[in-house]
This record gives sequence, structure tokens and C-alpha cells, in this order.
Amino acid sequence: MRAIVIHAPRDIRVEESALADLGPHDVQVRIQAGGICGSDLHYYQHGGFGTVRLQEPMILGHEIAGTVAAVGAAVRSVAAGDLVAVNPSRPCLVCRYCLDGRSNQCLDMRFYGSAMRMPHVQGGFRESLVCTEAQAVRVKPGTEPGLAAFAEPLAVCLHAARQAGPLMGRRVLVTGAGPIGALSVLVARYAGAREVVATDLLDEPLALVRAAGADATVNMRGEPAGLDRFKADKGYFDVVFEASGSEHALIAAFDVARPGAVIVQLGIGSAMTLPMNVLVAKEFNLRGTFRFHEEFALAVDVLAAGTIDVRPLLTATVPMAEAKAAFELAGDRRRAMKVQLAF
Amino acid sequence: MRAIVIHAPRDIRVEESALADLGPHDVQVRIQAGGICGSDLHYYQHGGFGTVRLQEPMILGHEIAGTVAAVGAAVRSVAAGDLVAVNPSRPCLVCRYCLDGRSNQCLDMRFYGSAMRMPHVQGGFRESLVCTEAQAVRVKPGTEPGLAAFAEPLAVCLHAARQAGPLMGRRVLVTGAGPIGALSVLVARYAGAREVVATDLLDEPLALVRAAGADATVNMRGEPAGLDRFKADKGYFDVVFEASGSEHALIAAFDVARPGAVIVQLGIGSAMTLPMNVLVAKEFNLRGTFRFHEEFALAVDVLAAGTIDVRPLLTATVPMAEAKAAFELAGDRRRAMKVQLAF
Amino acid sequence: MRAIVIHAPRDIRVEESALADLGPHDVQVRIQAGGICGSDLHYYQHGGFGTVRLQEPMILGHEIAGTVAAVGAAVRSVAAGDLVAVNPSRPCLVCRYCLDGRSNQCLDMRFYGSAMRMPHVQGGFRESLVCTEAQAVRVKPGTEPGLAAFAEPLAVCLHAARQAGPLMGRRVLVTGAGPIGALSVLVARYAGAREVVATDLLDEPLALVRAAGADATVNMRGEPAGLDRFKADKGYFDVVFEASGSEHALIAAFDVARPGAVIVQLGIGSAMTLPMNVLVAKEFNLRGTFRFHEEFALAVDVLAAGTIDVRPLLTATVPMAEAKAAFELAGDRRRAMKVQLAF
Amino acid sequence: MRAIVIHAPRDIRVEESALADLGPHDVQVRIQAGGICGSDLHYYQHGGFGTVRLQEPMILGHEIAGTVAAVGAAVRSVAAGDLVAVNPSRPCLVCRYCLDGRSNQCLDMRFYGSAMRMPHVQGGFRESLVCTEAQAVRVKPGTEPGLAAFAEPLAVCLHAARQAGPLMGRRVLVTGAGPIGALSVLVARYAGAREVVATDLLDEPLALVRAAGADATVNMRGEPAGLDRFKADKGYFDVVFEASGSEHALIAAFDVARPGAVIVQLGIGSAMTLPMNVLVAKEFNLRGTFRFHEEFALAVDVLAAGTIDVRPLLTATVPMAEAKAAFELAGDRRRAMKVQLAF
Repeated sequence: MRAIVIHAPRDIRVEESALADLGPHDVQVRIQAGGICGSDLHYYQHGGFGTVRLQEPMILGHEIAGTVAAVGAAVRSVAAGDLVAVNPSRPCLVCRYCLDGRSNQCLDMRFYGSAMRMPHVQGGFRESLVCTEAQAVRVKPGTEPGLAAFAEPLAVCLHAARQAGPLMGRRVLVTGAGPIGALSVLVARYAGAREVVATDLLDEPLALVRAAGADATVNMRGEPAGLDRFKADKGYFDVVFEASGSEHALIAAFDVARPGAVIVQLGIGSAMTLPMNVLVAKEFNLRGTFRFHEEFALAVDVLAAGTIDVRPLLTATVPMAEAKAAFELAGDRRRAMKVQLAF
Repeated sequence: MRAIVIHAPRDIRVEESALADLGPHDVQVRIQAGGICGSDLHYYQHGGFGTVRLQEPMILGHEIAGTVAAVGAAVRSVAAGDLVAVNPSRPCLVCRYCLDGRSNQCLDMRFYGSAMRMPHVQGGFRESLVCTEAQAVRVKPGTEPGLAAFAEPLAVCLHAARQAGPLMGRRVLVTGAGPIGALSVLVARYAGAREVVATDLLDEPLALVRAAGADATVNMRGEPAGLDRFKADKGYFDVVFEASGSEHALIAAFDVARPGAVIVQLGIGSAMTLPMNVLVAKEFNLRGTFRFHEEFALAVDVLAAGTIDVRPLLTATVPMAEAKAAFELAGDRRRAMKVQLAF
Repeated sequence: MRAIVIHAPRDIRVEESALADLGPHDVQVRIQAGGICGSDLHYYQHGGFGTVRLQEPMILGHEIAGTVAAVGAAVRSVAAGDLVAVNPSRPCLVCRYCLDGRSNQCLDMRFYGSAMRMPHVQGGFRESLVCTEAQAVRVKPGTEPGLAAFAEPLAVCLHAARQAGPLMGRRVLVTGAGPIGALSVLVARYAGAREVVATDLLDEPLALVRAAGADATVNMRGEPAGLDRFKADKGYFDVVFEASGSEHALIAAFDVARPGAVIVQLGIGSAMTLPMNVLVAKEFNLRGTFRFHEEFALAVDVLAAGTIDVRPLLTATVPMAEAKAAFELAGDRRRAMKVQLAF
Repeated sequence: MRAIVIHAPRDIRVEESALADLGPHDVQVRIQAGGICGSDLHYYQHGGFGTVRLQEPMILGHEIAGTVAAVGAAVRSVAAGDLVAVNPSRPCLVCRYCLDGRSNQCLDMRFYGSAMRMPHVQGGFRESLVCTEAQAVRVKPGTEPGLAAFAEPLAVCLHAARQAGPLMGRRVLVTGAGPIGALSVLVARYAGAREVVATDLLDEPLALVRAAGADATVNMRGEPAGLDRFKADKGYFDVVFEASGSEHALIAAFDVARPGAVIVQLGIGSAMTLPMNVLVAKEFNLRGTFRFHEEFALAVDVLAAGTIDVRPLLTATVPMAEAKAAFELAGDRRRAMKVQLAF
């Protein structure tokens, strides 16, 4: 069984890897599609992010879907041949956070393709994988595996939307039009937003989010005053999804968000220097959001039903053998939104 | 009628000032007590704060109480001789925010003793004042005017507590033990907090907040690791009231606040550089809070009932004629918590 | 100017009526479409409902739209020729509820076509009408007046949805498939519900709500056990919209709603005898919802944009002169969902 | 080891009973105090309530505290000699509700002294008991066992308060002044209620709740119009705790609760016939509340700290041998608030 293993920045290799034994509650999945995520790119480009650094070779990948090859004796919810999206989270289910309905904050989380703990948790970019029954979420037959592999990043955005409170009838600003920003536009639409405006520094991804349903977009590099019309009467937007990780984007949002607005911070960057007097005076509600929980199953459902159509965001599907080219493409925001690997 | 007028930093004068006419819906109040607030101090020490700068002489003061001297023909809720706390807010009551139950965000607010608009709104440090009936909130007979003059800063902290959601049973950290921090400790106790810990850089105010009900205090200068015991399992506090305006205090709170904690930012300082990856990963809810709304009447009630006892926080009552000495005292955090003027 | 006036049960007449003067903040609207609402039907069939009884002749109608014929000198937001939906609410804007963002609870509300106060507030089924500028909500040019006349009942359902909290990803049961139930199905879909099931006692309206987007329907008369599959593990639905006013429907919902479910009561019937031990043990959140507030403008927007498509619900458009036939048709749930009058 | 066993209505006996083995995660408690709850009384007086009926002999009791006699090898949080309050809930910790932070809704709950499942779960009125470590909550040394035995009913009321949202500054009505109503008064005060009014049909318990902190009380039998002064402007109370289980009490509350009020239904009675049009028009939020979850530990803390002082509610402590007399006393609301047994 072959897997995509990162050894150091820019050094990824397709290597043989062993398959775990199949326990009675386990499911073996023949992986078919795997999306390259921003964190995969950070490992590829920089060997990690913040204090999280590669310390040993690691299989990348956590946006994966495939077909069930075999199931353990106790497994009931899926059977061989089923298409499944694989939830890369394996929480402990006994810590205080798990028992409080917040397993994304689990004190002993194992999350695929993550160097947060040592030994690293190996990821899902491989031909075959053994996961627990709870991780293998059945997808409606006939769905394309590539769609199912969007479940993980979509779940991230659905979880972010949960932090924002009801979106029905809200005016929403999305800053940053990468995959997470673009999916946030789709989620805002799905949840009944009244108006969705997106910003970025590049025209190409903005064109894609307009196609995906944004009412308007602003290239903040080309048109730095493009949000000024939203500044009157203390601001316009009820909700902001900050998906760029850029301090500039967040500060720009402060000017056009209404008093009491919820600003959901999705983008992870370095430290940001913020005008806290504005946050105080406008009584903003700046919330972090981290991964997802039960939203994974919801993501699978809406993808399979087509209620949220992510197909415009899929730039290319690249064979496993050309993984390096896939990562290079995924790193070029002018050319790529979401790049997936085929196994 | 004399008033305390600021002309420039450190230049405050007791001067004659005219009294406004009494309209049918107005109330004339003989001011008896006025508390010196942090913003008064900023005008005194620096001529303003942020972009708000003195541009003309201004009567200071917005924490005031006194006795009704006369009422307009249409006034029903108070009568001559009543003790009243004067609400320094005069919102327009017709803008979108006023009609949305958020008059503290009024687009045309007149707030006593504020240089935010030009001409400045004159303040309440004066022997006599004409306000609207809505601003003159009746206080239970027999209450000391000095207690009633705490209504404004207490209302600020009650409003902050509203941003925090239910405090019953919550573990609360208060960073900064000035008057707003100390009142936040009292409010947290009033609202049923399970445990209240306060921090500051000085021992003297920390001793006061312990006396006022904090379970424990930490001098972060003397004992920089004093909060370390709250770091286990991703943090301990459900709610933080950040009342120092210090970036260091907020960052320290990030380490000991639990995932999903609400951090209410009360302190207004300059820009802060924040580790946003922590806010994201721990899914904090960082909320600004600005002034107050209906909490003013609640503050008056709990002060008069003694449910919240602010007397330990009153350092001194200084005659109007010695205003300059009062401001100097109020500016020395080792000697003073709240200083009031007597008119 | 002619209007549809009710004198007694089954006694409606098309009569001449005077037009009010046009004040500087007023708008004169040439009414084009008016939907017959359940309360109009109650006046027609029974002379009122509950304690609300006709005591004098009254023009019916409050679901109305038309073209601006003239505007007062101070009016800025609309101009002659504009299509407008007319908001039948005229709150006082000075009472405690209006100033708290809850003008639907106004202590001095005037609502078109209502016998709640005496003299009755005359309604909108008339050729021409003078309302305030705030009531005349501009509709995107080119929208059919009949669509715009859905703004009022849709606003009711959007307000109900606000009571339910976030609907994104929720499983929703709608009991009662009249116009309000059917619109609630549409709203649930619009707001991102994961699954929508509707019940009624008649097949005809259930067929319509399936066409409008319900995933499944149950005729509770024909298939009394039709909801049983949702009873396992203490229930299935996160949210219920009870739109029938029937005690049986609400009790049936108690069996299939999950612990902690929000049950929004829209239907107004007589007293209901409820198994309160179930409400207690399952910790239901049973909420009333009454009319609407800012949701009217949202309704206008989504109707004009076509985001919510109500056209399948419009049974017939009947000329004003045949008002009696229109009311008879509207009262027959097997034949009619929403009947509108043309003026 | 002796226990209080109910065989049939009015037939309770002090009998020998076997003690379970002590597993490695178990704690053996020498019970010292046990409060008689309303459900114990229902078993005693009627053999059950609703569909819950005694089908075999059962040890009563679930409000219990005592001293640790022995601990299993793996127990860390308590040691022999510690005073503990025993949490009568033993949820499964693996069902969907347990993993969602709602273990009070556990699909496989074992709750002491309950005939809900067969075989019945034996209760805590016994000299000695073996429970799990999680159930044995350590109480501050020096606390009276009788105070600790209030943890369970207090936890019920704290959980009810959580359903009500923030109580700080709210005006609260408590209908029914039995133990649960009286504790609700104490909780409302603890959580910062602005005003607390209580009703009942008897003077004796009302006198007790006034002593416990209610601002005013109304005997609805003696003074049926006693709440009328709260009816103006659509009502006065922000929050109602309905602790009587009486339809009359709830309907009376409908008249004096403000639009949007939260009405928490604690009392479990038979079916109630409610004016749903009032619930709808006033947009009430009628919520059930069932048992408790993490509030048990909070109850222990505030009882031991004396923040909530329940001593005025303890009518008598009766030796185990006189159990029958204790139950008769507990059933007489004119003479008894809370009766405890000593073991």
C-alpha cells in the first residue's frame, strides 16, 4: 500500500506503507479522493506552522473519501462497497470536552496528518486506510468520491457558521477567498444569508466565489476603498467570516461590521495587532472556531444531496504519482482553488 | 452656579457657568456627589484619549447624583427633594440602534463630559444641572448621594456582565483591579459566580478587591507565574473581564481561559498584538462592551438596596474647591480606588 | 375608491370608502394584490376569533401590495410608480417594547384589518390606501404584485423561524399545511434545514408542500402512526413549527421532538390540554411567535430575489368584485392554499 | 445494613438489605442524612405518579449525604472519612445525550429510588451504600451532612435556572412554595434577580420563602387578585419558575409575565389546559427542566460555602426508625418544608 509521505519542506515522496490490522469496530477504506488543505500546504512549504513542526516523516492528508473494502465483525453502519467520507478526527470520548458535546476540543485528540503530537498522527493520503466505524460516514450511493472528500473542509465552515448564530437574513462579509473563504460563502448562502460580500487580494478566486454565489466581491489590493460604502451609520455587516488570516483583512472588517456584529475568525496566521478600542466601542463579538464536530455528518449529507454545490471549487484532480505537482498547483492561488489527489 | 472646567491637560478650574432653562420635561438637579472616572483622568492627564481630544473648555464628569431642585410641568416620575442618580446618556431614541434596544450605540448620542463631538457635551461636575426626566433616576430615600454616584460605573460593569452570558456558577477572572475591575468583581459575585480571581500589578488595589469579595488575587508583577495553576486541561476560567486595557493581561488570560470562554474587553488601551491562533484554537468569544443601557436603573436599585456594597471602593470625598487635588489623588493607583467630589 | 367591507359573518360588501389625506410623511398606494389570510377568514366565517369580535363594519385585509400613486413632501425612500409591499403594522415607536426592538409587541399598535381595538383599524382590501413612508417597502422593479403581497405572511414565518434559533442543519417538523405551514416549510428550507417533514389531515395541501420542498409528509388522519418511526431514542426533530392550532398536532409533536427541542407555536386555536410531564421531562422549549418586525423587509427581499419561491402556493387571483367567491374558495382547504384578490 | 423500603402506598418498612461489593472505582458511603423529596412522597402516598408505578419493593431516597467508609483501589478524588454528597444519577456516558453534555437525558440512566425502569433502581435511604467515584462528591470538611443532603434538590433548581437564561437584574415570579419553589427563590436571589415574588395557597410556606429572601408573597387562595398589580403594560415578570404543578398557577403567571418571558416549568402534575393564544400573542418561552447535570457539583459548593443558606427550609430531622412519621410530616405542607431522615 502506497502513501504520500512528507520528510521535509518540499520533500514529499510516494512510499510503501503498512496497513493497520482490522479490529472488530474498524473499517478498511480504499481511498479514492483526497483534497489538499492549507495545513498540508504549510507542511509542504514550511515544514509546519507556528509551533507545530515536522519531527518525523508523516503521511499527509485529512480530506479523504473512498470505498469500504472490509469491515470488522462488530461494524453495523457501513458495509463493503459503500462510499464513505472519512472523518479525520478521533476524539477520546471520555474527557470533559468530549462529554460536553465539544469533542473538537478533546484533550487527547488524534487528527489525521497532524504533527501536533509526537509520534505524529499519520494522515489519509494513501491507497488504503483502517479507521473506526464512527469515522467512516456513509455517503449516498452514486455520489462522486471527490465531492465526498469536501466533507472535511465544509464541516469546518459549517462549524464556523454555528459560531455565528443564525445566518438567516444576515448580511455577511467573507474576507479571504481561498477554499475556506469560498466554502464559507456557500455556507452563508445555504443558511439563508441576505447578502454575501467577499474580499481577497486576487481577482481569480474572487471570480470563483462570485460564481459560487457571492453578491459582490472586492479586490482590496486593486480597490482599497471598495468597502467604504458599507461604513455609514457605524457599519453594515451583521456577520464576518475572516478566512484570510490577515491582520489587514480583519481591521478592514472592523470598519464595516455593525455594532454587535459577530466576527468569526477562521484564518490562522501569526499574531495580529488590533485596534481594541474599536472592538470595545462597537461591542464586537470576535469568535474563534476550530475544526468541527457533528457538522461532519451534515457536510456529507448536503454534499450528497447537492444542496451545497462545491463542484465549481474543484480545480483539478491529480494522480497520486504526481503529488508534488499537485502540491505546487495547490500553492498557486491564481491557478488553484481546491486540488484533489486520486488514489 | 460653579462647575469644574478643563481647559488643557492639568488645567482644571472651578468657574461660573450658566444653568440651562427648565423645559416641561426637564429636571433641575442640585448635584451632591460626582465620581472621577478613568476618562475624566485621561482628559486631565493627557487632554483626551485615542482620537478624542479636547478642542474647547469642557465641564468634566458623568458619575453624578444629587437632589431634585425643580421639575418641569410635565414631569411625573420625580419631585423636588428626591434623591436622583443622573444618567449621563441622552440617546436620540429614533435611530436604528435606539429602536433596536441598543441605545448605547445611538448614532446621535449626547454623553456628559465627552469631547467625542464638537461642540463637546458639557459634563456633570457642577453645582446644578438641568437634565431630562428620563435621565433623573429616583433613588430610594435615605441613600447616601455618594453611593448613588456609583450608578454609572456600576452600570458599565452590569452591561459588561450582560455580554458574558449567565454568570451563575461560572469561574471568573478579572484582569485589572481599578474601579472598573473592582466593580466587575462585585458584579460577578452578585450574579452568582462560583469563583472570582483578580489580577493587577499593584498590591494595594488587589487587597481592596479581596476585601470586596474576590476569592484570590495575583500580582502579576510580583508573581508572574501566579496563574499557572489554572493552565491545566486547556484552561480554567469560563469568563474573563479584561479591565486593564493591557495587552499583557489579555494574553495572560488566553492561557488560563477554557475553550469557548467568553472574554469581555472593558479596558480601552491602545492597539494590542494578540496570538490569534490561540483565540482560534480555543474558540474564544472575545466581546467588546460599551457603556450601558437599561442597566443604569438596575445599578441604582442594587446600590440603594445594598445588594452590591461599593463602600469599600470609595477612597475619599473631596470638596469641589480642591478638584485639582482630587484628580491628583485619583490618578495614584496605590492610594486611590474611587475618588468623589462633593459639590 | 371602493373597498371590501365586512358587516357580519358571510356579509362582505364592495363599498365606496373615503381616502385619507396625504400628509408629508405619507404614501398613497394603488393596491393591486391582496391575499386572504386566516384571520380575514375568521371574520368572514365567524365574525372574529376568541375575544376579538366585529363591533362595526371594517375593511378587511393586511397582505397587500401595489403601486405608489403619490408621496408626501418629506418622503424619500419611495416615489410614484414604485411597486411597494405595504406593511400592515403601525407601531407607536415610543413605548417600551418599540424601544426594545420588539415593536410587534407595541402597546399601541395599529394593525390593518383588525378588530382588536375600537374603533377597528380599517384594512387594506381597497383600491387605494394612504400609509406612512415606513410602511411602504419598495420592491424590486419587475416583481409581480401578487408575489409582493406574500410579504406579510412570509414575514410571520420568518419571525417564527427567528424564535427557533439557527435552523441550519436542523431536522424540522411542520404540523399543519395551510398557508402558514407551507410558508414555514419554505422558510425552513431557505434557512438550511437538513430535513423537513410536514403533517396535515388532508392530502391536497400536503401534495403542495411536498412540491414546495418538504422531504416527506404524513396525513395524520389516513396514517395515524405515520410519525412513529421518529420516536426512537426520545425523538428525532430539533425544531417543530406548529401551524395548525390543533391540540392533537402539538401532542403528536411531543412524541417525536428530541429532548431540548424548540417548538414554535404559530397556530392560534382555542385552549389546548397538554401533557406537561412530557414537556418537563424532555425539556422542551415551547415558544409563541406573534406577527413580525424587521422580518417584513427581509420577506420583500427574498420574494423579489426569488430565493423563496411562493408561486406554487398561489391558488387563484380573483377580481375584487367577486370577493365573496374568493372568500368561499379560500375557506376550502381541499381546493385552496392562498387566494388573492385583484384590485 | 438497614434500609427504608416501600412495598405499597403507606407501607414503608425498615428492613435489612445487602450491600453491593466495592469495585475498584467505587466508594462505600455511610449515609448520614437523607431528604424526603416530592417523588418519595408520591410513592408513599400513591404508589407512584403518572405511568411510573411501583412493581416491586424499592428502597426510597435520592437526596443523600454521608461519610466515606471505604474506597476502591482506583479511587482518587475522595478518601475514607470525607463527607460526600451522593449524586443519585448514574448516566451511561456513551449515548448521544451523554456525549452532548446532556447526561440528564441519558438513554440508559439509573437514578436512585426510581421505579421508571424494571427492575427498579434502589434508592439511598439506607445505612450504607456503594456508588461510583463520580457520584461521591466531596464536601468541604465541617459542613453538616444535612446541608450536603440538600445538594440534589438544589441542583434541580440550579438546572432550572440555567434554562431561564441570565437571572441578573431580572424580575422573577415563583409559583408554588414547596421545597422546589423555596429553593428556586434562593437560587434566583443567588443569581442576582432584581425582585422575587412567590405565590402559594398556604400562608405557612409563604412565610418561609419570605424569610428565605422573597421580596413579596401572595396567597392566591386568600388574595386571588394579589398579582393584579403586575398586569399593566402586558405584564411585569421576565422569568417565572412554575413549581406547583398547578394549571391555575401557570395560567395566573401568563397574565403577569411580560412578552417574551421565560417560564420554566418545574412542577410535574397532570395534563394542563392552557390558553395557547396568550402564549402565542405574548411570545412566551415555556421550558421544561428535568433533573440536573453538572449543577450537582455547583450545589455542593454553594451549600458548603454558605452562599445559599438552606437552613431555614429544614423543618425536622427524624431518626430512620421513625420513617413513617417522617413521611407523614413531610406530607403536611402546613407543618413541613423539608424533612430529613438521620441514619
